[in-house]
This record gives sequence, C-alpha cells and structure tokens, in this order.
Amino acid sequence: MVIVMKPSATKDDIKNIDALLKKLGLGVHISTGSERTIIGVIGDKRLLADTPLELMPGVDRLVPIVEPFKLAGRTFKPESTVIRIKDAEIGGKKLTIMAGPCAVESQEQIMQTAKFLKSRGVQFLRGGAYKPRTSPYSFQGLEEEGYRLLAEAAKDVGLLVVSEIVSIKSIEQAIEYVDIFQIGARNMQNFQLLREVGRTKIPVVLKRGLASTIEEWLSAAEYIMNEGNYNIILCERGIRTFETYTRNTLDLSAVPIIKEISHLPIIVDPSHGTGKWKLVTPMSRAAIAAGADGLIVEVHPDPTSALSDGPQSLNFETFDTLLDEIAKVAGVIGREW
Amino acid sequence: MVIVMKPSATKDDIKNIDALLKKLGLGVHISTGSERTIIGVIGDKRLLADTPLELMPGVDRLVPIVEPFKLAGRTFKPESTVIRIKDAEIGGKKLTIMAGPCAVESQEQIMQTAKFLKSRGVQFLRGGAYKPRTSPYSFQGLEEEGYRLLAEAAKDVGLLVVSEIVSIKSIEQAIEYVDIFQIGARNMQNFQLLREVGRTKIPVVLKRGLASTIEEWLSAAEYIMNEGNYNIILCERGIRTFETYTRNTLDLSAVPIIKEISHLPIIVDPSHGTGKWKLVTPMSRAAIAAGADGLIVEVHPDPTSALSDGPQSLNFETFDTLLDEIAKVAGVIGREW
Amino acid sequence: MVIVMKPSATKDDIKNIDALLKKLGLGVHISTGSERTIIGVIGDKRLLADTPLELMPGVDRLVPIVEPFKLAGRTFKPESTVIRIKDAEIGGKKLTIMAGPCAVESQEQIMQTAKFLKSRGVQFLRGGAYKPRTSPYSFQGLEEEGYRLLAEAAKDVGLLVVSEIVSIKSIEQAIEYVDIFQIGARNMQNFQLLREVGRTKIPVVLKRGLASTIEEWLSAAEYIMNEGNYNIILCERGIRTFETYTRNTLDLSAVPIIKEISHLPIIVDPSHGTGKWKLVTPMSRAAIAAGADGLIVEVHPDPTSALSDGPQSLNFETFDTLLDEIAKVAGVIGREW
Amino acid sequence: MVIVMKPSATKDDIKNIDALLKKLGLGVHISTGSERTIIGVIGDKRLLADTPLELMPGVDRLVPIVEPFKLAGRTFKPESTVIRIKDAEIGGKKLTIMAGPCAVESQEQIMQTAKFLKSRGVQFLRGGAYKPRTSPYSFQGLEEEGYRLLAEAAKDVGLLVVSEIVSIKSIEQAIEYVDIFQIGARNMQNFQLLREVGRTKIPVVLKRGLASTIEEWLSAAEYIMNEGNYNIILCERGIRTFETYTRNTLDLSAVPIIKEISHLPIIVDPSHGTGKWKLVTPMSRAAIAAGADGLIVEVHPDPTSALSDGPQSLNFETFDTLLDEIAKVAGVIGREW
Repeated sequence: MVIVMKPSATKDDIKNIDALLKKLGLGVHISTGSERTIIGVIGDKRLLADTPLELMPGVDRLVPIVEPFKLAGRTFKPESTVIRIKDAEIGGKKLTIMAGPCAVESQEQIMQTAKFLKSRGVQFLRGGAYKPRTSPYSFQGLEEEGYRLLAEAAKDVGLLVVSEIVSIKSIEQAIEYVDIFQIGARNMQNFQLLREVGRTKIPVVLKRGLASTIEEWLSAAEYIMNEGNYNIILCERGIRTFETYTRNTLDLSAVPIIKEISHLPIIVDPSHGTGKWKLVTPMSRAAIAAGADGLIVEVHPDPTSALSDGPQSLNFETFDTLLDEIAKVAGVIGREW
Repeated sequence: MVIVMKPSATKDDIKNIDALLKKLGLGVHISTGSERTIIGVIGDKRLLADTPLELMPGVDRLVPIVEPFKLAGRTFKPESTVIRIKDAEIGGKKLTIMAGPCAVESQEQIMQTAKFLKSRGVQFLRGGAYKPRTSPYSFQGLEEEGYRLLAEAAKDVGLLVVSEIVSIKSIEQAIEYVDIFQIGARNMQNFQLLREVGRTKIPVVLKRGLASTIEEWLSAAEYIMNEGNYNIILCERGIRTFETYTRNTLDLSAVPIIKEISHLPIIVDPSHGTGKWKLVTPMSRAAIAAGADGLIVEVHPDPTSALSDGPQSLNFETFDTLLDEIAKVAGVIGREW
Repeated sequence: MVIVMKPSATKDDIKNIDALLKKLGLGVHISTGSERTIIGVIGDKRLLADTPLELMPGVDRLVPIVEPFKLAGRTFKPESTVIRIKDAEIGGKKLTIMAGPCAVESQEQIMQTAKFLKSRGVQFLRGGAYKPRTSPYSFQGLEEEGYRLLAEAAKDVGLLVVSEIVSIKSIEQAIEYVDIFQIGARNMQNFQLLREVGRTKIPVVLKRGLASTIEEWLSAAEYIMNEGNYNIILCERGIRTFETYTRNTLDLSAVPIIKEISHLPIIVDPSHGTGKWKLVTPMSRAAIAAGADGLIVEVHPDPTSALSDGPQSLNFETFDTLLDEIAKVAGVIGREW
Repeated sequence: MVIVMKPSATKDDIKNIDALLKKLGLGVHISTGSERTIIGVIGDKRLLADTPLELMPGVDRLVPIVEPFKLAGRTFKPESTVIRIKDAEIGGKKLTIMAGPCAVESQEQIMQTAKFLKSRGVQFLRGGAYKPRTSPYSFQGLEEEGYRLLAEAAKDVGLLVVSEIVSIKSIEQAIEYVDIFQIGARNMQNFQLLREVGRTKIPVVLKRGLASTIEEWLSAAEYIMNEGNYNIILCERGIRTFETYTRNTLDLSAVPIIKEISHLPIIVDPSHGTGKWKLVTPMSRAAIAAGADGLIVEVHPDPTSALSDGPQSLNFETFDTLLDEIAKVAGVIGREW
C-alpha cells in the first residue's frame, strides 16, 4: 500500500505514521518529493485492514497496490483449476454447457428438456427451484419440489444438476438433489450465504453481481474459498449500465481478464446477459471466442408458455443452432464441443 | 400495458393476441397506425405476469404502463405514512436522526456514543453487529454480542436501537434487542430476507441497492408489505456510477421522487453515500433541503481507531456541527430539529 | 406514441388532448381502463417533436413507440449497406481491418507501419493527426502535417487512409488527404460536425459515444444521413461503466443489435474498448464471432515509445497473431480474411 | 507517480526503469517489498506524459498520485475565485441565478421573460440560440438571430446574457451579443472549442459531461485556463446512470468536492439534472444547501408551448416559489438572495 500525504503534511505527521506502521510490524519506505511525501508500506496488508489510516493527520489518501483477494488469484496458484464432477470436467479442453429452463415448472417440462439435452451431449441440466423476481407478484418457483423434479429428471437420463440456492434453508433442501450450487447475481455479496456454501465442498457457479467490479467478484469467491471450498466456477452474466436495449450489458472482456488474474474457470450466461433470445447465439459465439470455458443457457421446450424469462429462452431448434455454431468456433481456438 | 406489434405483424398475429388476452379476462384496445398496430391491455396486470407475450408472433415489445408496486404507492394510500415507535415518530414534522458507529466494537465505545447522542436529543442509536464487508479478511462484526451491547447501552440512556440483519439467524438474534431492522444495500433484493422481515411487524429501514432503480426499490418494499409489515422507512444511500471520487453517488433526487410516488418515509445516509466525512455535513443539509424525513449518520467517539468505515465517520464535535446546520435548514422548510 | 394519463385525469383533459392531436393531423385511439386512460397517437411523430405534451393537464407520461431514427433503420432499407471505396468493400463478406498507430508521430513511424500493413493484406491505414486528450499537457497530434504524412505513406504503398476530424477546420485540411473520416466518441454528439460531414460524401467511421445508447448513436448517424451522406460505418469502442479494470466496457452485444435494427456496417475497436493490448486479440476474436464487419486496431512499430495509447497498442508481432486468429474465426462463420 | 512492478520483475527490469527516469530528470525512490517492488517517481509528471511506462518489462501498472489539473486546483490558488461582470459577481456571497427559456423562440417570448426576471432581481438571462438535440428532426434553434434577440431583450431591461456556443462559427456570432459563453455537456471534451474559448477572455459556464468524472471536468477547465481565460464557472447538470426515472442523476456531492479541490465557482442546473419541473425546486434548495454558488434554471412564459425542454421548465409562478425557497435556505447558510 502507498500512503499519499497532503502537500501540507508536517514532519510530525510523517513521523507518527512511520511509528504506527513499525509498531504494526510493517516495513516503511518514505519518498519525499517536491510537493508531497509518499510512504510505501510493506508486509501483510491484513495487519492494516481495520486501521483507518486515511484519518491520520496529514494523510491525503491510500493507494492499494496488492489486489484484495489471494486464494482466487493466479499469483497464489499459477495453473488453471479444472473441476471434476463424476465424468464431467469444467475448465478443461472441452467446453461446459449448462442448459435448461429458467424455472422448473412441471415434471413433464423438465423431463422433456433433460432428454433433449442428453441427446445433444450436454452434461449439465440447469433449472430454478427458487426464483428471485423483482416483483412479489411474479412466479417464485416450486422450491423444494423443484429441486426434486430436477434431480429425478437428471438421474433418469444421466445428467448433473445445477440449481440456484438463495438461503441457508434452500442449501439444506438442495444438498441432496443438486451437483452444483448456483449463487445468483443478487446474492453475490450475501456473505452469509457465501460462507455457508464455502463450508460444503459442493462446486459453485458464482455469478457476477449487477454492479460488481471484477475485484469484488473475486473477493466474493475468496469468501467461499476461505471456508475451504475451492470448487468455484465464475459466471459473467452482464452488468448494469445506462443502455436499455439489452437487459444487462454482457462484459465479455471479463473472460480474458479472469483468465489472466485468476486460476478459476469462467463461463458466460448470454441469456441473462442480453435478455433477448435472438442475441443469445451471437453472444455465445463471442463468449467462446473470447476464451470462456463454457456457457449457461436458458432452453425451454416452449418459451412462449414459460413462467419466467421466456423472452430470453431458446427453444430446442434454436439451441441446436447454438451448439452447431459454438462447436465451429471451439474448433478453431483449441477447444472442443 | 401496451403491446407494440412489428411492422411485419399479420392480421392473424393480432387476432391471436386479442384472443389470448380476452381468454385471460383482460380488456383489449387495438389501434392500427400507418406503420404499426399497438394493442392496449386493460385490467389486472398480474394476470399477465407470467405470460411471455414478447414471444408471440408479430410482437415487437411490451411497454408497461402501470408501476410494478401497489401497496408502496401513493395511489394506493394518498396520505404520508408516519411510523410511531414508543415516543418517536418517523415521517412526521420532526426530523429523524439515527446515529452511531458503523460497527459495535466494545461496550465502552457504544456506551459513550449512546450517552453523547442522548444528550443531543437524538432518539435512535445505530450500530452494526453483522458487517457485510467486501473482503473476508476485514472485521465482520461482533454478531449477537453486538446486538446485546447496543440494546444495553440504548436501554441505559433511553434510546431506540437500529441494526442491520443479514440472515434469518440474525433476525432471530436481533428480535429481542432491536427496535428497527436495517436491510443493507447488498441485501435489498435478498427476497427471502425481505419476506421473513415482512412476517414480523418490526419497522424496517430498507436501503436502496447499489444498482437498483427507484422502481425496483419500491418493489423490494412491496415484498415486505405483501407479508403484512407496512412499517418501512426507505433509505437513499448512494448508487454506483463511474465517478470514483466518492464511494457512491448520492442520488438526492430520489427524495422528492419518493415523496411524490410513495407514501413511505425516506431518510438519507450521507456517510455511505459519499464515503468521506468532510462531505457528510454539506450533503446532510442538502438531503434535508430536498425534503428527506431524516438522516442515518455514522458517528464514532474516535474515528481514527474505528474498525470499519472510519474515513466516513463524524466525531462528536463534527456531529454537533451537523446537528446545528440541519436544524437551521429544517427551520426554513417547515420541519423541526 | 402512447400518452399515459394520470389516474386523476378528467374527461376534459382527455378531450383537450384529443382535440390538439387531431388539429395536428394525427390519428387518435383512446383506451379507457379501470385505473387510467391511455391514448395512442398515430401518424408522423415529427409533427409532435416540439409539442411538450407531458405538460398538458392530466398527462402522466409519454411512451415512444417508434425509434427516433429512420434513414439508419432496417425498416427503411432492409438490405445491408456495403460501402465501396476504390477496390475495398466495407460490410461485404471480407472483413475490414483498419490499423495503424494512435497518433502519427513521424514519417518513419508511419511509413514503416504502412509497409508492414500492406504486406499483411490490410487495406486501411489509420492514424491520428488531431488527438483529443483529457489533459492539455499531453501530445495533441501533428495536425495538418499528420494528415499529409499519412497520405504520403498510404499512397506510396497503396492503402486507404482513415483519420479523425475534430472541427470544421480539420475537415478542410483532411479532405485532400483522407479517404474515410473518423468521428471520435467525444464528438459523437457534436452536431455541427455531424452535419458538416454529412454535406461531404466521404465515408465516415462514427464511433459510439462513451455514454450513448444505441438509439442515440443511430440518431447521430441520422444527422449525417439527413444531409445526404449515407456512407456510414458504425464503430463500437466501449462505453463507460463502473468497472475500472478496463478503460471502457466493450459492449459487443451492440454488434448483433445493430445488425438487426440497422442496415449500416459495424466494426469494433478493441484497443480503446479495453485499453490493454493483452485483451485486444481475445476481444477481436469475440467481435468477429459476434458478427462484426471488421476491426479498427492500434498497431505501432514500437509501442514502448508511442506518444499516445502505447499500453493498448499491438506491435507487429502481436498484430500478426491477431490476424491469424481472426482469420480462423472468420472462416467458420461465413466471413473471410 | 508510483510504478508498481510485477511480482516477476527482475533486477534488470528495475534498473532499466531507474535509468530511464533519471535520464528524464526525475527523482526515483525504490521500495522492495516481500512480493513486489514499487518505484516512487518524483518531479514534474509532464516529463512522463507521453512515455508509456506501462509497457516496460516488469511493470504491472502506474498509480497517479498528483491530480491531472493544476491551474484549476486549490493547491495552485487557495482563495476562491470571484468572477465580476459589470455589476454582477459570481462566487461571492450573493447567489447567482441564471434563468430563461431552453431555446429562444421569438422576440415576444424572450422579452416577456427578460422583463419578468428583471422584476425578480435576477441578473442573468439565459436562452439557447443553438440547441444540440438528439434527433435531427427536432427544433435546432434560431442560431445568430437567437443571440440577437437575447441581447436586445437583455439590453432593454438591463440583464447580462448567457448562451451556449457549439462551434467556432457560433463563437464568432455570439461574441458581440453574449456576456457569458456556455459550453454544454456534449461539448465538454470538444477540445478545439475549449481552446478557442480559452483565447477569448469571456467568462464561460462549463457544464459537466454526461459521463465525465470530476477530474476530467477540471481537466477540461484546464484546457481553457491554459489558453489564458481563467473566468470559468463550473456547472453540475447531472450524469448518466442506470436510473431512468430522471433524465440524468444530479450529482450534488460534486458541489462540496469542487469547493474543496478547486477555487472555481460552481452552479447547478436542476432542470437538465432532473428533466422534470416538479423536481426543480426541491433540488434547487438542496443545491444551495450543499454550497452551490447559484443555479441555472429553465423558465418559460408558457412551458406547454415550448419548442424544447418544456417538461423541465418552470413557469413564472413556479419560478417565484423557487426564488422564495432558495432565499430562505441561503439565509441560514451564510449566503444571500
């Protein structure tokens, strides 16, 4: 960390900070310029985490030098993480496709979808049992029954299940049905939930928050990892901007950035990232071309009757096109589908 | 709701929609223009909540006409809500000031603050027992012990307690110590938490989410109200924008907007809203001048030793200045302090 | 357009609006719901452009139905526009690559770059003669001399020249040296400049403004087209968001959206869109995969000595990699490089 | 400036940078930590402005320590600037009110407004001759005739004239009619225009760009000041965010920030800042309470017939209320109206 002093800082101000830092066991380097002094602080920044240096006399501001996460960073673990669940791998050469309806609605709907996905080589069935909806008057999901229907369909055809958990109670329900927990954008900084999920060893898809920087996203991953669960799959799903044409702005540059600064796998959600089914296929091609390890896509046997997110869901036919197109892109960038 | 058809929509497309809407019991008005047809839908929009009309052939897009909240709206309840807790009123002529440290750190710290606040006529003591922090390595709060210390100090001097709840477990702990629950910005769309709080009748300070529109904020209030708890105090605390000089961008225009479209009281948090203690007093004056019903402010006996948010906390002396200044502004706009 | 009336609107309010609209020669459809009346307005919305209907008694708000642009829209011209300049085509099957240094610095620098690009099959040489820089103390470009050096180098090896114009004076200077004008993000709503460029027939690369919606961007194109110049190439170059890791957030979803709603070609600028040279190649692959007609990329013989934008420039070696990679992606999505 | 080296930087990397900086005449302080080395650079940062240090081997990133502006900063000039034009002062104890229609429409309209404003003690008449409009089909202003009508009306009743200039041609037209130039949000980074205005000595209202940080805004002021014109009045007019209820998000925290870091006066535009006339008075009270030196407000004799911005304009009656209310707020914070 670098402490930038005010032009008006006195020698005593600097002496006080020097003394405090040394008392905390930190190394100190003082550079005196023509206008200002800056103080470099060396050592474990956690020693400083709760000391409000900004308020000490003469201090102008603090400049963090080291990123706020550690376990999630590539400095800590240089080789890329590959997560293995039964016969599936996430983060390896083969792309990971998670697909299914936004919400589990009925046995028939989820069974039909599961069979279709299996026949296309997809390994992960996604579906929402708890649906965080902006309005309390919208369909909120089948809850535990939803997890059960998912698991039955998946078991029947041989798929792995991905489903969102939204509370400690939902973790308890999901734990016997679900292979991968999903933490939604609105819960990315629900730190109680992150910690609870960290105490299980179940893999987690961690979606980026609507207004979260990449650093905050990796810090959220750090909460889970700090409890011992290292099986995290990051998921870019769009951030909120001033543009209203799309539901969110899909930030695909997050893909190569995560690949550079973190060892965790990253997938992309083009369905929430755009909010419009017509944009899902081109943005899926782009995600794979940018280097994503896979996709999570909304697919519904009949989007026009879907109880939520119909407008951004593919049907079986358009999903087939998507698979064809990403297979081609994967082939030319050293991946497989 | 208005359904805007594509220029290429056929007569059959329009007929199909007309039939569907009528089947749902809704009124339909069709306007055929030179380029497009638009269809006005009349009746309870909740009948449509889960029907993805956007996907029907010929539909270009839907334009919502009625706001997504009802119980929180001034149309539903024209007179302003005044919340009464013991001898205090929120939303009345007298301003509401909630003050105290970001985090409860020790009995001495909270007791000293409580005595000071009481001596200045403040009625609400705030303090965090659970602290949502970006990094898992920062101080996370004293948890239940924090609630207890707050309640003891408050009881001793005669104050009411405001404290954040972050999970169902924390609600259970807080319920015997706290007079007002606070729901933080990061939990504004933690719908499980909203519903749970809705089932108590305890007043709630509902902070605006970092990336939440005013409509989404009122929809979050609606979740609580829909469970039967109407005692909601909205709190503007800044939104996330591209500006980095302040921690957040305090959106004071939310104050007169809420006053126009909702009956709920609204207070402002200039501490989180700016992140810098020097900006707290001018922005507090501005908040009161804009029509806010009060403030929630971070005050600490010694901000330079605070375990969290020191840089945005006032000390006792600067808090005295704040009270003086808002009293003057209150006096000229028909409020009292 | 739809006029949404307030719940409190009277019959007279509605009658007045009806009368006004009819006087303006517009068609009127009135739908009376249980809570509100909505009024559909049919006809040329330009008749209404300067009538502040929002202020008429009883009006709650206006909902525009038709997009604000016409000439730039695919409804107006269904087939995609292909722009031909000498032997080059923009918007056809073959990708368009515009490359070169951020700023023209010297004859040697630009000559060396031109030869290299020509040898790689690139058809367009870009370089800045006028550089809009945030600080007045940064290098501002060689001005007219810059245009001259560009044109000489291009002529020598057989390339076409793309360069930014920033004022009417710069248009007058550039017109004899430049094949394509570039309008930068900061000038996207410099309407005097748009109109002036519209009066020439010279093709224009119109960059999206930092805070411009897609609709505003197409409206800026409309300013140019309305003066008679239809040769517009849109360029997505990133928008401003809260994320600070990248210089801007490259909004690749703009590519398929523009392809759907406009007939104009669209290219992508991954250099400004990310601000980091390491992200340029992955985001270029993604842009082509999303359907872009080409790229505009910063290439410099020695980025470490560049007078501006060095950190986001490729050198000749990394540019070769970029060309290899986009050629592969182009091949699988029906394009050519 | 601080140069943060990568963990992988070698001793040679550090030696190279040290040598380069010393060659440029800059002071160097090297701090070697357990994980990284950081290098403090001391001296005139302009020596470094065009050297892309980020690209040198071993460099991770640069951290600027000193703000990018100088002449606009309070370090350079500690006392607040007061601008005097004839008998008016901007930045003194008395508030500055600039008022008038968005666009000059006719002699009658502007004359009627001028008389009204004079009778209320307002000193500055504002009105647009050139109107930057999103759509080319909207009213674009009376151009030179507009400046003339403004000047006639102002001279007749004894007011000073504020009007927007949008190009060098418009500066030439305006210079004989206008007392204060206005640079609009869309032109805040039209650097040619800034420089041209800098060469006159005519005071300038410089509006903040829609997506401009406070630092960029002050850097734009620096462009004008660097040419010799120090008479700058900053104007906060709202920034673009995700909130759609208001036209922009008025960032009132900019007021106390500017007061702290700059010596220039700052006024607020609540009309564009909100886009809704009902919000103008509460946000004006808030602006004054936050410490603004004045307001620029849209007033029209008959907003319902205004050719632009009617919905955000006050009429004479509501403007009277505004003046009453801000006079009261001014009185309690040491200002006058």
